[in-house]
Amino acid sequence: MSKGHDTRQAILQEATVQASQNGLSGITIGKLADALQMSKSGVFAHFKSKDMLQVATLTYYAEVFTDRVVRPALKAPRGEVRLRSLFSHWLAWASTELAYGCLFVSAATELDDRPGPARDILVSQQKDWLDVISQVAKTGIQEGDFRADVDPDQIAFEIYGIALSLHHALRLLGQRGANQKAWAAFDRLVADARLTTNART
Amino acid sequence: MSKGHDTRQAILQEATVQASQNGLSGITIGKLADALQMSKSGVFAHFKSKDMLQVATLTYYAEVFTDRVVRPALKAPRGEVRLRSLFSHWLAWASTELAYGCLFVSAATELDDRPGPARDILVSQQKDWLDVISQVAKTGIQEGDFRADVDPDQIAFEIYGIALSLHHALRLLGQRGANQKAWAAFDRLVADARLTTNART
Repeated sequence: MSKGHDTRQAILQEATVQASQNGLSGITIGKLADALQMSKSGVFAHFKSKDMLQVATLTYYAEVFTDRVVRPALKAPRGEVRLRSLFSHWLAWASTELAYGCLFVSAATELDDRPGPARDILVSQQKDWLDVISQVAKTGIQEGDFRADVDPDQIAFEIYGIALSLHHALRLLGQRGANQKAWAAFDRLVADARLTTNART
Repeated sequence: MSKGHDTRQAILQEATVQASQNGLSGITIGKLADALQMSKSGVFAHFKSKDMLQVATLTYYAEVFTDRVVRPALKAPRGEVRLRSLFSHWLAWASTELAYGCLFVSAATELDDRPGPARDILVSQQKDWLDVISQVAKTGIQEGDFRADVDPDQIAFEIYGIALSLHHALRLLGQRGANQKAWAAFDRLVADARLTTNART
């Protein structure tokens, strides 16, 4: 990797911290330059506009998320085991991001009423992430772990809800027992999706 | 009600709109005065500080929420019917708040790392709301609709997750079918809590 690439990554790393604290709109070239002891023009050389900086920050954050959550989970065997691994890595991510809160969660409410390139990239990323969860849930059907009539998109919707409720409980309410609640919700979801559960209906 | 009270309510109504768009920190005396065609000193007479204005805005918003969601739901018979009514009124609230997004959701990420009176009141309100859901779920146990070993706090945690996932799907992703997903998740939650479902384990 070139030095220019390293500098760019360092700027984006700092940008994610500032964004988690003050929102994407709170990232400024001036504050980035201060934090990294660079000149403003040095930062500006990498990101010519505020939109470009916000898009690059979200893209960088998504790459880190993919490296830490998606890639390792996809190494697990297809089926329920992989879905469990995905959820487990997601919860580990939520714990390490706890100091600042997850940027995706804060960006969602910050950008939902602000049309523009940053919102567009966030929507695309979030849809991609829901698709990943759904695809992994689908391997559970294909491998015979889950019933054929299970809706993978429904599973993705519900798992996302568990993660959001956990983030809320940990970050805002400071409820440490919330991790257990998240796992209990996940276990119930998986139990209902298993073949043996059509005894219920 | 006095004229002073009416004016105060009008200011707070406008403040919730501004807060939903630009965050609680985006409410300013100047913009409120402009929107309501009042003098700045007229607005200032009601709210002496930014903190006081933010706290009053959250308090006002919680009162509206209680009137539109909690009060009507508590008129339903105790048990599963009441829990269903609570969820139904909550979803109706989410739909009407869709133009701006729910202030509680955006305030949660805005304030989670900002200690102060506004954060304190929000945490207290959110805990109260989770307690209401939990209490209503408990009537389901008491009335014999749900199993005795159902954890009402777990139900509250999960229902909150469904609502957050719905808000995210509707507001950010524009997925209109999300309401059906929310109901499917709720129905599964309730079905699992029913007495007859211990066939599962």
